[in-house]
Amino acid sequence: MTYKLYYWQGIQGRGEFIRLALEEAGADYVDICRGPSREGMGTRAMMSVLDSGSEPHVPFAPPFLRDGDLIVPHVANILFYLGPKLDLAPENEGLRYIANGLQLTITDFVAEVHDTHHPIAVSQYYEEQKEPAKARASEFIDNRMTKFLDYFERVLTRNPRSKDHIVGDRLSYVDLSLFQVIEGLRYAFPRATSEFQGSYPGLVALRDRVAARPNIARYLKSERRLAFNEDGVFRHYPELDKDPA
Amino acid sequence: MTYKLYYWQGIQGRGEFIRLALEEAGADYVDICRGPSREGMGTRAMMSVLDSGSEPHVPFAPPFLRDGDLIVPHVANILFYLGPKLDLAPENEGLRYIANGLQLTITDFVAEVHDTHHPIAVSQYYEEQKEPAKARASEFIDNRMTKFLDYFERVLTRNPRSKDHIVGDRLSYVDLSLFQVIEGLRYAFPRATSEFQGSYPGLVALRDRVAARPNIARYLKSERRLAFNEDGVFRHYPELDKDPA
Repeated sequence: MTYKLYYWQGIQGRGEFIRLALEEAGADYVDICRGPSREGMGTRAMMSVLDSGSEPHVPFAPPFLRDGDLIVPHVANILFYLGPKLDLAPENEGLRYIANGLQLTITDFVAEVHDTHHPIAVSQYYEEQKEPAKARASEFIDNRMTKFLDYFERVLTRNPRSKDHIVGDRLSYVDLSLFQVIEGLRYAFPRATSEFQGSYPGLVALRDRVAARPNIARYLKSERRLAFNEDGVFRHYPELDKDPA
Repeated sequence: MTYKLYYWQGIQGRGEFIRLALEEAGADYVDICRGPSREGMGTRAMMSVLDSGSEPHVPFAPPFLRDGDLIVPHVANILFYLGPKLDLAPENEGLRYIANGLQLTITDFVAEVHDTHHPIAVSQYYEEQKEPAKARASEFIDNRMTKFLDYFERVLTRNPRSKDHIVGDRLSYVDLSLFQVIEGLRYAFPRATSEFQGSYPGLVALRDRVAARPNIARYLKSERRLAFNEDGVFRHYPELDKDPA
């Protein structure tokens, strides 16, 4: 059965966490919004689900995944659902809740990244909230980013089952998501992240291992991997980065 | 086995979503931070888990639940874990992912409520960010609250399996969480919520049904139910409410 991923076209955004898992697993999936409208795909196909009058449980927002009749919304929920099917979750059931907890911490982290450029209103442009955005971005760089990354580095280096993965003894979707977080932060805040290698050696090594995995390396070079841009979650606005020394 | 809930004492906060589920089910649990330190409880007991050097997978933040050796962090994750055990989750496995998706939408909603009083920095007091807080609260009241509640009302009234519950054919933890959301919004924004009865008849009726359940009614009258206050997520700052007509 082909998985159907629904997410805004043109951005990596939150959908990218799902794409990375599907790509690593070599899963059969369609990125609906990027498909041709003549084949019933495109953004309109996504909107028709969100605005559906017949679907009992419509999602609040993209991304969501369709697997047969089931529509699963929210990144962490989709990964919790897909993880075992794609062989990207711990085998131990208790550890699956640990993985989900880590993924939800990533969710919170990503929401804070988003709010650096949209601290007041998602209905308005960044340009309309530049001043509070600068204040929030400074707080993010000075306090929040450090707090989250210290945490992930600590959990990673203490994982009793593996030195190479954050949970369990093999690759999980959480490792893939951490790759994306590091990539995104480096794109958005090149100055603030310039010393990541020294500060977070475990996370940077994890990022490098994920990037080198054959399916991921192939994906990153493909057209399916969109570039970061200023419509996504991780945006590079130089004025929000750490001030130059 | 007694469940151990770890959450800041003195506030309902995010821990309240867990308390409501445990109370409805009549589960055997201890609210660790509110217990006596002479019995190894209190806030220090929680901090010793968060700062633990031996625990392999420490949580990023409260609330978290301890069940034997397993520590489960994050509200939605805890409820996903507890739901089936407390008979507060749908029986159908697919519907459990629907429930989790709804709970994660509540998580996002609650984070936006929080950010009405802390739009810039969680490390600073509300009083230090009153101006952006007013801007964010206005956006929240005018656009976001409506969008979320319209969504929940729509899903509730369209649930094909029950008119009384948002998912499945019986009470779930999501219903309990929606009760808490309505209560919290009414506390924080009495003016902006004064017409809830007319705008969201389904959600208000759901709230009333939950409040009338014997175990919940008993809990709400007990000392275990803390009052809302200005240290929690739902805070009543009159200047952030809708402006008087």
